[in-house]
Amino acid sequence: MDLLKARIASDGRIIGDNIVKVDTFLNHQIDIDLMNDIGKAFYDYFKDKGITKILTVEASGIAIAAMAALHFNVPMVFAKKAQSVNLDGAVYTSNVYSFTKKRAYDVIVEKKFLNEDDRILIVDDFLAEGNACLGLIDIIEQSKAEIIGVGIAIEKGFQKGGKAIREMGYDLYSLAIIESMSEENGVVFR
Amino acid sequence: MDLLKARIASDGRIIGDNIVKVDTFLNHQIDIDLMNDIGKAFYDYFKDKGITKILTVEASGIAIAAMAALHFNVPMVFAKKAQSVNLDGAVYTSNVYSFTKKRAYDVIVEKKFLNEDDRILIVDDFLAEGNACLGLIDIIEQSKAEIIGVGIAIEKGFQKGGKAIREMGYDLYSLAIIESMSEENGVVFR
Repeated sequence: MDLLKARIASDGRIIGDNIVKVDTFLNHQIDIDLMNDIGKAFYDYFKDKGITKILTVEASGIAIAAMAALHFNVPMVFAKKAQSVNLDGAVYTSNVYSFTKKRAYDVIVEKKFLNEDDRILIVDDFLAEGNACLGLIDIIEQSKAEIIGVGIAIEKGFQKGGKAIREMGYDLYSLAIIESMSEENGVVFR
Repeated sequence: MDLLKARIASDGRIIGDNIVKVDTFLNHQIDIDLMNDIGKAFYDYFKDKGITKILTVEASGIAIAAMAALHFNVPMVFAKKAQSVNLDGAVYTSNVYSFTKKRAYDVIVEKKFLNEDDRILIVDDFLAEGNACLGLIDIIEQSKAEIIGVGIAIEKGFQKGGKAIREMGYDLYSLAIIESMSEENGVVFR
């Protein structure tokens, strides 16, 4: 998606050769017009697939997933990252290691929100090593719902998540795939 | 807002005389049409106030705040709840005690996202004791931005947050104020 790539190129802040900070528009301050365009891009790609629900994980996936849900006109579910006092009932869980936060955590979805007749689109802001996405895939497989595809705003193509998920046979649609980046030369898109 | 009150009455699950679970439509699974209506209700109330930014706190405020931002056509910022590796730069912080989670945490916003000429609308899903909201107010006051108002989906009117924030002089607009509730008699709205 050209609009997102242009925004990453202009406003993304590269740290080393691995981190691009997009907190001015994507995951701390949110440019809602851009989120809306991202949601629409996912809709345009997956609109004929009979999606019944959008699944993401808190927190930075929620705004994008909400906009996608608005375009698909289906409910959105966000997986929680830790057992909360207010979470009761039967839950699906999957353990995820975050390289960003350097710790493992559980992603949790109450069973009542995923049914075997659901056709799920996973949505998230970033795909790097892919662990969060694999955790969501694990949860959906537990529920017997069908995984129709994965919509990602920014895929770091030089990390292994995208390759892993494509090799599993899932329809992974990333709006911007970063092939490489450096503080000297900026971002190179695939 | 009648639509939200009706939904709480029909789908809210009351536990004891203090907790109403609305996870089927508001804060785990998200009814995006309802979120959109909630965002529009905040817009209708505050539209003439020159709002420049929506502020909420992760995670369950994000979907509502995103929909509000869409109607106001302004950026949305969500405060983070813990220091992340990817958060650098100067930040505003405020310490918040959560009665739900029975622990204290910091809410954090990078300084660059709140400026003294901003006119901020705080948005959140729930207001009970008011600690999260008071943390956001503290952060905005640190930034010298102006607090134009507070938009809340569900206020638990029998807890002290709403009274405290109104007594501080803020324009608090809650779409559903629960006066009391019990498993026997359901929810009574103010």
